[in-house]
Amino acid sequence: MVREDSFIGIDLGGTQLRVAAIDAAGRILDRRAAPVDRAGGVRAVIGQMEALIAKVRRPDTAVVGIGVPGAFDPGQGLVLDIPALAGWTAIPLATEIEARTGLPTVLENDAKVAALGEWRFGAGRGIADFAYLTISTGIGGAFVVGDRLVRGFRGLAGEVGHTRITDRSAPCSCGHEGCWEAVASGTALARAARMAVDRQPRSRLAALAGEAPATGEDVTRAAREGCPVALTLLREEAAWLAAGLVNVQHAFSPERVVLGGGVSQALDLMLADIREAMRRRLLPGHEVPDIASSKLGDDAGLIGAAVHAKESR
Amino acid sequence: MVREDSFIGIDLGGTQLRVAAIDAAGRILDRRAAPVDRAGGVRAVIGQMEALIAKVRRPDTAVVGIGVPGAFDPGQGLVLDIPALAGWTAIPLATEIEARTGLPTVLENDAKVAALGEWRFGAGRGIADFAYLTISTGIGGAFVVGDRLVRGFRGLAGEVGHTRITDRSAPCSCGHEGCWEAVASGTALARAARMAVDRQPRSRLAALAGEAPATGEDVTRAAREGCPVALTLLREEAAWLAAGLVNVQHAFSPERVVLGGGVSQALDLMLADIREAMRRRLLPGHEVPDIASSKLGDDAGLIGAAVHAKESR
Repeated sequence: MVREDSFIGIDLGGTQLRVAAIDAAGRILDRRAAPVDRAGGVRAVIGQMEALIAKVRRPDTAVVGIGVPGAFDPGQGLVLDIPALAGWTAIPLATEIEARTGLPTVLENDAKVAALGEWRFGAGRGIADFAYLTISTGIGGAFVVGDRLVRGFRGLAGEVGHTRITDRSAPCSCGHEGCWEAVASGTALARAARMAVDRQPRSRLAALAGEAPATGEDVTRAAREGCPVALTLLREEAAWLAAGLVNVQHAFSPERVVLGGGVSQALDLMLADIREAMRRRLLPGHEVPDIASSKLGDDAGLIGAAVHAKESR
Repeated sequence: MVREDSFIGIDLGGTQLRVAAIDAAGRILDRRAAPVDRAGGVRAVIGQMEALIAKVRRPDTAVVGIGVPGAFDPGQGLVLDIPALAGWTAIPLATEIEARTGLPTVLENDAKVAALGEWRFGAGRGIADFAYLTISTGIGGAFVVGDRLVRGFRGLAGEVGHTRITDRSAPCSCGHEGCWEAVASGTALARAARMAVDRQPRSRLAALAGEAPATGEDVTRAAREGCPVALTLLREEAAWLAAGLVNVQHAFSPERVVLGGGVSQALDLMLADIREAMRRRLLPGHEVPDIASSKLGDDAGLIGAAVHAKESR
């Protein structure tokens, strides 16, 4: 009988810390989660990781992979900066986890591990040229070209959310304007939704939002109920998504594009518009790629971190 | 003594056909050129290729590589379309050259072979993450990531000239507007130069252009003579180049960027502006890459086509 090792993946988010053990076929064997101890700081969060690893770890666990939502040095296993979490500056995270667990530990960018998860066990399976994009608070990207994950110098490739696409003075999380993320992210959709609610207080969208500021989720729900205000917002969102996807297509030429993140839950409502807008703008020779929703959903990064660990051995 | 094979590269342009034999160290052993027989059509040009190959070929010539300025099918060795040359639709070019010369023949995109030439024997030597961009009539690109040329699905990756960057109604060769090429190519610079000459008929730039419409070359020459009109044009060109280079950096994260094409001859005049504009806009963690001029110049595609042949064996 072949010995089947297991692998631990860690998804470190701004609010949730999630840890899972997966087998070589990408199945989750066990999983645990905890709210990130933000008040406790770096020491406390590393302690949380240690405790959750102890719970999911098995005798055959071989290695730990961590998806880092920020800058890191893969060679040194060093977290350089996590914008969403205070204090994570020059933290030797891999060494710390290795010392506490005895398990080899590797770091990778959070978008890249999510792409890896979808590529190996999700909606990108078997595709040699593949793009993964999360459309949520921001826009993150990671690319597989010729059956290899595109890392680039210092592992920094894939930041297509911060490519300039427009002259609009749309503020972006990076502090600049005109980025794709600034006009096509969930944050941009929610901003447009709040303005639409102000203009159309009797719309179904306004009713669903109620007293709270309208969200991207409200837009999707209202659109499914036929609200014309919400449908217009999704048409505009589809146009901006298509503009950026054309840029992605010309730069990387993926055969398939997989979309994750909250906004991708409205993909079925936007897909025809996206495809038509891309078709009009793509260069001769280029075709509209397959466009699919994430199959692993919120688990893409968790599973992908473990896949990265497995493939780093 | 080790037998050293030689390799033939063909650079098929809209006006010039160039053929060279190189050795394994990238040295040109022999080279020939002829004006493309546009009137004679496809048959005539294939005959020209055959004749020039016969002149540069050596007993040890192993394989022929052709850089295609258009769409092609590498597996079938089929040219699908060359926008700059009429009649090149579904032409089995590789088979034709093989039948006429007895030499195995491979096709690759012209920007990709130029990048390959610079990567192996030019300004990109030894760089694992490397971007090559030609800034001339249009903007072409090709990328090496993790020591591999980025081809993408159907070999179509790298068309960063046709990524949308602005809302300006700047007409692009692709028939759309707002592409990087539409605002930063040599064509865009020449268009701006002609408008500047109309506004400033007493400028040094106007004097250099004389009766003819001003060109990008005129701008560079006038700028070197201190003409303020030309210097302003180059500052604007630098700003658009920087905007696109930031997009390239965020998407591919090259360690070095090599610029070829006519506009790159003014790189020394623009480099400080480009670097400063990139520095202001790059994400934390990203640094301004090395930016260098092409070392092989006009021969990048010719040498690179032979390198592609060599590496395809």
